[in-house]
Amino acid sequence: MDNDGKFLRKAIDLAVAGIRKGGGPFAAIITLNDNIVAAAGNRVVLTGDPTAHAEILAIREAALKLKTHNLSRCVLYTTCEPCPMCLGAIYWAGIKKVVYASDRHDAAEAGFSDNSIYKEVILEPSNREIEFLQLNEPDAKKVFAIWEEYENRILY
Amino acid sequence: MDNDGKFLRKAIDLAVAGIRKGGGPFAAIITLNDNIVAAAGNRVVLTGDPTAHAEILAIREAALKLKTHNLSRCVLYTTCEPCPMCLGAIYWAGIKKVVYASDRHDAAEAGFSDNSIYKEVILEPSNREIEFLQLNEPDAKKVFAIWEEYENRILY
Repeated sequence: MDNDGKFLRKAIDLAVAGIRKGGGPFAAIITLNDNIVAAAGNRVVLTGDPTAHAEILAIREAALKLKTHNLSRCVLYTTCEPCPMCLGAIYWAGIKKVVYASDRHDAAEAGFSDNSIYKEVILEPSNREIEFLQLNEPDAKKVFAIWEEYENRILY
Repeated sequence: MDNDGKFLRKAIDLAVAGIRKGGGPFAAIITLNDNIVAAAGNRVVLTGDPTAHAEILAIREAALKLKTHNLSRCVLYTTCEPCPMCLGAIYWAGIKKVVYASDRHDAAEAGFSDNSIYKEVILEPSNREIEFLQLNEPDAKKVFAIWEEYENRILY
């Protein structure tokens, strides 16, 4: 049975339905043992939240349901290659596998910035289009020092 | 007046306070016209949400307060260089300037994956540590086609 194709097509159906409700043209589904634990469409414009990409919303929903930030037993299906924001979230969640259909170039043709952001993320911070300014604040070192001394810290 | 240093030190104070409340060792502040509109510490472990980085939470809070996903008039202050997830969110929000203290290498020394994720994001999807599988689903092209025909679409 082609579960990867099945869940990916479900995500595509969800994205199409989402457009008609005012959502962006993206959707994502997360499974655990081939059961759906989270499903979401893009809601950036609907909610006014720039982080409300389908993958981010699905990861947050799955984490809430499974009561853990560790989704290493989960697979994520998404209609389009995750942008750098969602890719980062996938790594932080430890998702084991990502299945997608369209890619960053298809998204660019539809007017989205995914490919441009992939080009920015690899640049030295000082060379980016957005100004990135590193200030030398001696107290900044203390934050990690205090963290390392904190006996109840949980690394993630 | 050194506003950049002032807001960055406020973020550092917030990160230190956050550790003692069970938060991760990171915090972020967003300003508009040199007034704070959002402030957040890392809450990944506290909430079980892998996306609950300080920058993501501050961006969501600022967007909610300002009632727009477009934060192009805002400056983000963060105790540590944003990871790829947060960098993506910064681009999607259109934040005009980012000021930070520690960087991805300091974070790595404290045990965090920021630098490793920066190394993964630049790889071809098929060469990453997490399996990225692109499937050719003909219906995927329809999603963007339907989007482009949707008369009420709002590009972001």
